[in-house]
Amino acid sequence: MRPSGRTAEQVRPINITRHYTKHAEGSVLIEFGDTKVLCNATVEEGVPRFLKGQNQGWITAEYGMLPRATNSRTQREAAKGKQTGRTMEIQRLIARSLRAAVDLGLLGEYTITVDCDVIQADGGTRTASISGACVALYDALHAMVEKGLLKSNPFKGFIAAVSVGIVDGNAICDLEYIEDSNAQTDMNVIMTEEGKLIEIQGTAEGEPFSHDELLELLSLAKGGINSIIKEQKKALNIAS
Amino acid sequence: MRPSGRTAEQVRPINITRHYTKHAEGSVLIEFGDTKVLCNATVEEGVPRFLKGQNQGWITAEYGMLPRATNSRTQREAAKGKQTGRTMEIQRLIARSLRAAVDLGLLGEYTITVDCDVIQADGGTRTASISGACVALYDALHAMVEKGLLKSNPFKGFIAAVSVGIVDGNAICDLEYIEDSNAQTDMNVIMTEEGKLIEIQGTAEGEPFSHDELLELLSLAKGGINSIIKEQKKALNIAS
Amino acid sequence: MRPSGRTAEQVRPINITRHYTKHAEGSVLIEFGDTKVLCNATVEEGVPRFLKGQNQGWITAEYGMLPRATNSRTQREAAKGKQTGRTMEIQRLIARSLRAAVDLGLLGEYTITVDCDVIQADGGTRTASISGACVALYDALHAMVEKGLLKSNPFKGFIAAVSVGIVDGNAICDLEYIEDSNAQTDMNVIMTEEGKLIEIQGTAEGEPFSHDELLELLSLAKGGINSIIKEQKKALNIAS
Amino acid sequence: MRPSGRTAEQVRPINITRHYTKHAEGSVLIEFGDTKVLCNATVEEGVPRFLKGQNQGWITAEYGMLPRATNSRTQREAAKGKQTGRTMEIQRLIARSLRAAVDLGLLGEYTITVDCDVIQADGGTRTASISGACVALYDALHAMVEKGLLKSNPFKGFIAAVSVGIVDGNAICDLEYIEDSNAQTDMNVIMTEEGKLIEIQGTAEGEPFSHDELLELLSLAKGGINSIIKEQKKALNIAS
Amino acid sequence: MRPSGRTAEQVRPINITRHYTKHAEGSVLIEFGDTKVLCNATVEEGVPRFLKGQNQGWITAEYGMLPRATNSRTQREAAKGKQTGRTMEIQRLIARSLRAAVDLGLLGEYTITVDCDVIQADGGTRTASISGACVALYDALHAMVEKGLLKSNPFKGFIAAVSVGIVDGNAICDLEYIEDSNAQTDMNVIMTEEGKLIEIQGTAEGEPFSHDELLELLSLAKGGINSIIKEQKKALNIAS
Amino acid sequence: MRPSGRTAEQVRPINITRHYTKHAEGSVLIEFGDTKVLCNATVEEGVPRFLKGQNQGWITAEYGMLPRATNSRTQREAAKGKQTGRTMEIQRLIARSLRAAVDLGLLGEYTITVDCDVIQADGGTRTASISGACVALYDALHAMVEKGLLKSNPFKGFIAAVSVGIVDGNAICDLEYIEDSNAQTDMNVIMTEEGKLIEIQGTAEGEPFSHDELLELLSLAKGGINSIIKEQKKALNIAS
Repeated sequence: MRPSGRTAEQVRPINITRHYTKHAEGSVLIEFGDTKVLCNATVEEGVPRFLKGQNQGWITAEYGMLPRATNSRTQREAAKGKQTGRTMEIQRLIARSLRAAVDLGLLGEYTITVDCDVIQADGGTRTASISGACVALYDALHAMVEKGLLKSNPFKGFIAAVSVGIVDGNAICDLEYIEDSNAQTDMNVIMTEEGKLIEIQGTAEGEPFSHDELLELLSLAKGGINSIIKEQKKALNIAS
Repeated sequence: MRPSGRTAEQVRPINITRHYTKHAEGSVLIEFGDTKVLCNATVEEGVPRFLKGQNQGWITAEYGMLPRATNSRTQREAAKGKQTGRTMEIQRLIARSLRAAVDLGLLGEYTITVDCDVIQADGGTRTASISGACVALYDALHAMVEKGLLKSNPFKGFIAAVSVGIVDGNAICDLEYIEDSNAQTDMNVIMTEEGKLIEIQGTAEGEPFSHDELLELLSLAKGGINSIIKEQKKALNIAS
Repeated sequence: MRPSGRTAEQVRPINITRHYTKHAEGSVLIEFGDTKVLCNATVEEGVPRFLKGQNQGWITAEYGMLPRATNSRTQREAAKGKQTGRTMEIQRLIARSLRAAVDLGLLGEYTITVDCDVIQADGGTRTASISGACVALYDALHAMVEKGLLKSNPFKGFIAAVSVGIVDGNAICDLEYIEDSNAQTDMNVIMTEEGKLIEIQGTAEGEPFSHDELLELLSLAKGGINSIIKEQKKALNIAS
Repeated sequence: MRPSGRTAEQVRPINITRHYTKHAEGSVLIEFGDTKVLCNATVEEGVPRFLKGQNQGWITAEYGMLPRATNSRTQREAAKGKQTGRTMEIQRLIARSLRAAVDLGLLGEYTITVDCDVIQADGGTRTASISGACVALYDALHAMVEKGLLKSNPFKGFIAAVSVGIVDGNAICDLEYIEDSNAQTDMNVIMTEEGKLIEIQGTAEGEPFSHDELLELLSLAKGGINSIIKEQKKALNIAS
Repeated sequence: MRPSGRTAEQVRPINITRHYTKHAEGSVLIEFGDTKVLCNATVEEGVPRFLKGQNQGWITAEYGMLPRATNSRTQREAAKGKQTGRTMEIQRLIARSLRAAVDLGLLGEYTITVDCDVIQADGGTRTASISGACVALYDALHAMVEKGLLKSNPFKGFIAAVSVGIVDGNAICDLEYIEDSNAQTDMNVIMTEEGKLIEIQGTAEGEPFSHDELLELLSLAKGGINSIIKEQKKALNIAS
Repeated sequence: MRPSGRTAEQVRPINITRHYTKHAEGSVLIEFGDTKVLCNATVEEGVPRFLKGQNQGWITAEYGMLPRATNSRTQREAAKGKQTGRTMEIQRLIARSLRAAVDLGLLGEYTITVDCDVIQADGGTRTASISGACVALYDALHAMVEKGLLKSNPFKGFIAAVSVGIVDGNAICDLEYIEDSNAQTDMNVIMTEEGKLIEIQGTAEGEPFSHDELLELLSLAKGGINSIIKEQKKALNIAS
């Protein structure tokens, strides 16, 4: 029995609020239960130096947590003067995942930066970030087409992320904080709507895990991701 | 005529949502029109080194803006590796103001940190921060008394802040961004509910201002602050 | 009775030494009693990026304190690797004040940087900095005209700054350190020679202050600033 | 046909040189073909603050690349003043993997830091680092037992890491740089000698990968890791 | 013929003003011609960690240049966020030299920090710093004895520094900036009053220098240092 | 009697391995006894800004120590976020020395960066760095000529460095760590193959040293440098 009463397969209630702030080209508040992340997509002209003149665009991401998004206050990275390794790892993961959803060659020399800022944390902030960022990115790309910046929409398809893990010997989907902190194995999976893998990151926090456990986790992830992509499309009024 | 149709004296619609996030001892989302700031108060044991053994508490504050809180994206301070002078100036101001609302001698050896993070900016982020932080602080102090950490409540009275300025030759109250960026004179005033001054910071952006203009601005500020304190009390169900 | 035997209205003895160092276009040592600040104005071609092509100049300022300018040694900011919030706040204030003394549109695409370095501190280092920087700026602008860099002098008029405050219930002018550290209210005022306000920053360190106290402080400030501007002109051999 | 003439399953020639430097408690140069990493294990008394008094040890790792380990020179992180996100990600991965090889409860209040410095890079620096670090760690633990610092050896079993990937549609094992930079999918796998998974990190650089491709990659990884663990044991004169 | 009309052996006019600022235990403005350095010695209880419990004191130094001490403005190190290699090198040299003048075993567990801040630069700022710092150190040690912090004075004897160099083929003493920037060889020599060497740092900027040239430079340095030590003693009213 | 059984004049066994890594234009592992430094020379187009358009090249150097190159682990500079003063001092010294070996006017607008990374330290890391870097630089320049980047070789002649010092009253050459840490005087000398001086840096760690001692040290240095240059040439198959 999970703390929330969920079954092993069930993801938390998902809420996706578009146009959450008024300035960003795409602005989405995503909630996975008590985990709340604001995802703002910004479109800017130009590309990083290593891409100049290659006639393609770029997508990058930054991640942050408000100091009191967590149960006890964590030090503000801006005050400390540097981002932690965890933050860097997560924002690199978000960016890689988003790039898999877009045909960069069709994006033109634009850079889209998606800022994922955790307002409240209860496990799964990186998977919520990716899943919300995909919707913000969709809105931003749509706006670019509307404004005539792009001729065709370079969006290739939805992607979403979910965490799965083994807690007390049981494989479960979409861990909340109390589950996450007791997991023997913790895995984040990012997939396309066709069920193909974009990224898989599994870690044995305690005992190593077997090949069979990996397969079980992957199967749970696939189900969870399906549910999330359904919610993404619902928020965008797209038939699934 | 102001862009919003307000009179010179009118403040923007104020919304104060308490318990906005679940972890902080005090958590308030304050909205001054389109300016939205999340103010989280955290209570921690201990005081900074310079106060050790003096049998008193401390109140400090940190301020941040989400990168896309603004019209065009501003660089993330955590990524840049340092806080701007503007950020430092604002968080020092917030902290000084809040300390004026509390009897630090009655706070015991606790530190309260109020994080003010701007979700959306449309002028007046520092005055909204102070006004919202006061409510978060109130809730945090109340919680300390409830938990038995404090015998009596060290809160001395409400404080609030408002910006006033001269735009196109007219003195107006609670400037939104478009007004602020055209102001000849820009002033932030922080007052107690008794109408006494805690802080006044006035700057001539263009032409210097006269003694009479200063008095007119102060009078507008007093009215605006009264309105804000009324909203603070309403949110806390305290009769004004 | 003040420690120095001054009346409430009296500023400390002011000394202004021009051409204090040989390299800077304007170089002034200003002394407000035991507070000594070296103000060096540097003229450089070009303007910051945000002003490029707008056919106007820029004035900026930096502030520092020698580590042993103070009673006990303060850590060297260069060694620590960052400037404190107090330093940033002060240098932003100096720069804003100086820009009010100059018609930037007449300055051409030049940047003037005024470095204010405190050699010895005894209260009022920011007001001495502004008052001395104004003279250094005057000299630098004059030199630009002499060298033919500018056709007409963009200097609009003298500005000066003074601190005022309430100590033991009495409003006094130009606080020295021992007074400053006991002030209930501390205010810095910057005015033009016509008595108009450029900046006012008042802070209740202890009890909030009343509207009447504010007026009393402003009146003291006006007198103090008059005395300082007289000294600025005397140093420059300009009739007041 | 692979550039080196290897079959899809083959790892590069592995060389493990123990006692490569004289100061470290464990010092191993590991070579995966042209990739050469020096792994130095340092034993120090004490544990990080968050573990104090818990009667257990800690294992951590740091990773670096000499500036000209790569084909074109990369900027020295020490000169730049910060470690890249890639570096942080890798050193966190190495440390997590090594902790899976040791019973921290039997380690006592000691910290072992393994420095992995890449002397020459040709793909797979993180997997070579982990595989070499495991041997350096083994030597360091053995030395602790020899010196009487530990009663029993907390080493739980060998671990090793290998990269696998899909290049030109074919799954291959232990990618060298030229293969790595053309991989559609890139995966790092860390396993125990029993074939259980410690960590799996797979990324679709181009097209997403299927479930079947994942299984094929995992199978290749298992074979590669077996070969590496055989070399680890040979270097330590342990029968496999 | 030197720009100043000096002979090869002559040092510039030396001025040493003691008690230049009021807070420091030793405060000296030293002038070598147009080079002006303020040397403030601060006495603090305690020693750095690596000396704790060894019953001896420590002497350290910091060096800085005001941004406009130089002909064109140099960036403020505090603003840049780090000290240059040149600054670090110089302050390490000053500190080593001063430690040679004091019996650290007699100093007790005190640390003396000497801040050398260049007010105006015209060549030889490091040699002026050392020579002035020695006098500030003398005053600080004397004050410690006066206050009863030390039973006997740990000062071992005067030290001074001078630059020598080869310009246009001629060996000269105490180079001013214009000479320094044209020197083929540049050497800084620090000696005791007995003529023994504390430090010698010679660099061939252009052509390498011969053994004979080295001897000639050393001989010039000895003469220059004698002159400086005479001025140090005169400033302190000590018979030479 | 020296710990190694060497006579006062003897340098440690020197080993120079060229082509130690495969990417760098010049790559040399130099060993002075147990001190091992990897020196990689990188050729890049372009020069630093202060040299642009002057039709000459530039040579610079960076220095680092692997954390466990030393007897106890030293903190990684990249992790700490800054290079120590010692590191900066050494890399500036290496670069100055190397520039003396090359006619920069013949180098064209290229920059050569020599990275000296200490794999294992046992005293004399800076002198080994310079001596090894000279060979790496030679190889890099040779490669530039081969590739047709340069018409003639700008190499002017070999340079080498050695440390000399006074230990227990005796002058000795090429100190290993245990000698270095007990030296009363410590001196680094860099010379050309003609026996001319490029740099001399002597420091009295304890007692000041006399003119005669300086001469004795210089004579030892000359002998040591001769031996090193012989080895440099042998490694390059150049007749000495």
